[in-house]
Amino acid sequence: MGQPKQERAVQTRLALMRAAAEVFDEHGYAGAGINKILKRAGLTAGALYFHFGSKEGLAEAVMNAQQDTIEPLLESRGLQRLVDITLVWAHQLGADPLLRAGVELSLGHEGFADGAPFESWRELMAGYLREARELGELREGVDPEAVARFVVGACTGVQLYSRQVDSRASLPRRVEEMWDCLLPGIAAPGTAQDFDYGVARGERLSRMREGA
Amino acid sequence: MGQPKQERAVQTRLALMRAAAEVFDEHGYAGAGINKILKRAGLTAGALYFHFGSKEGLAEAVMNAQQDTIEPLLESRGLQRLVDITLVWAHQLGADPLLRAGVELSLGHEGFADGAPFESWRELMAGYLREARELGELREGVDPEAVARFVVGACTGVQLYSRQVDSRASLPRRVEEMWDCLLPGIAAPGTAQDFDYGVARGERLSRMREGA
Repeated sequence: MGQPKQERAVQTRLALMRAAAEVFDEHGYAGAGINKILKRAGLTAGALYFHFGSKEGLAEAVMNAQQDTIEPLLESRGLQRLVDITLVWAHQLGADPLLRAGVELSLGHEGFADGAPFESWRELMAGYLREARELGELREGVDPEAVARFVVGACTGVQLYSRQVDSRASLPRRVEEMWDCLLPGIAAPGTAQDFDYGVARGERLSRMREGA
Repeated sequence: MGQPKQERAVQTRLALMRAAAEVFDEHGYAGAGINKILKRAGLTAGALYFHFGSKEGLAEAVMNAQQDTIEPLLESRGLQRLVDITLVWAHQLGADPLLRAGVELSLGHEGFADGAPFESWRELMAGYLREARELGELREGVDPEAVARFVVGACTGVQLYSRQVDSRASLPRRVEEMWDCLLPGIAAPGTAQDFDYGVARGERLSRMREGA
């Protein structure tokens, strides 16, 4: 009986996070009443406090779930993996309220002022860039830590800009442009075109995820 | 008597914008009472409504003043000019509440949802990138519009990331890292090191500005 109970707990957590994300998305964090979230999830206040302690704890879980909505179904390595994360992220931001709410909360204007979600993306990306270096994919002298830090910042700002001008409709194309600008400077000379960073790849990888 | 009157009007406008920026910086836009702004500026409500129409109009003027705090004293051309804008911007964000408030309001979470400040930076930067192309400074195939759009987004996100992790103390160094990542991909082959994008240049250009 242990396993089903644990599965139910996972599903309850996820139901609360999804409901909270949707309500944050519609009303902002400050305007998201706990009752609205519970009604949307079809769950009780007891479940929320048991799993997250508070609305704040629930918001932190939403912020920290960003990578889990993207990583599990990617199989590429090194530099292509870094590219794939950004492609799927850009595509999914339009479709997935959980990811969207996590990104919004991370920007800090709702009072969540630490940089933990940024640092966590940076660590993940730096790992794939170190792998890329071992695979001989990086231009000599390129620092995986510095590139990871820059890509996290750049993605954050590119999504904000596209949110302001067209509600993120252009975001996948803007991320493709980012790699147009960046890859020639970080990939080993003459290899930038070996990586697939087109909008179509982001769509395809996201569909595989949705179908799973 | 026309000239002094006009000068007084310019100074009144600027005093209101500076006072508003400081109050936005301390209390956020929503929390910035008009009386607080007027008291800080030492001016009357009549002056505010005459020059800006409303608190919203004042905030829009603050948003649109970003370039005026940076451009006037730069003399470089082409790609170095683009670099210089970002260096001085990064340095001044820590020192100049008017610039800082303009950048914060542009992010959209205060309800200013149009992308005008982003588009205005993009147009300015695209102009210098077209100049860079005429000067033979760009790698073949680089699109000035796409690079300008990316640099605006990237700067936005790099400053947000550094705001979250260390209140922007690291921002000048992060902008230097941005150019480490970007210049090899956009400057003509072998010329990236001809451009000066170090933190020290941003400090020096800003000091010239403060001394003027």
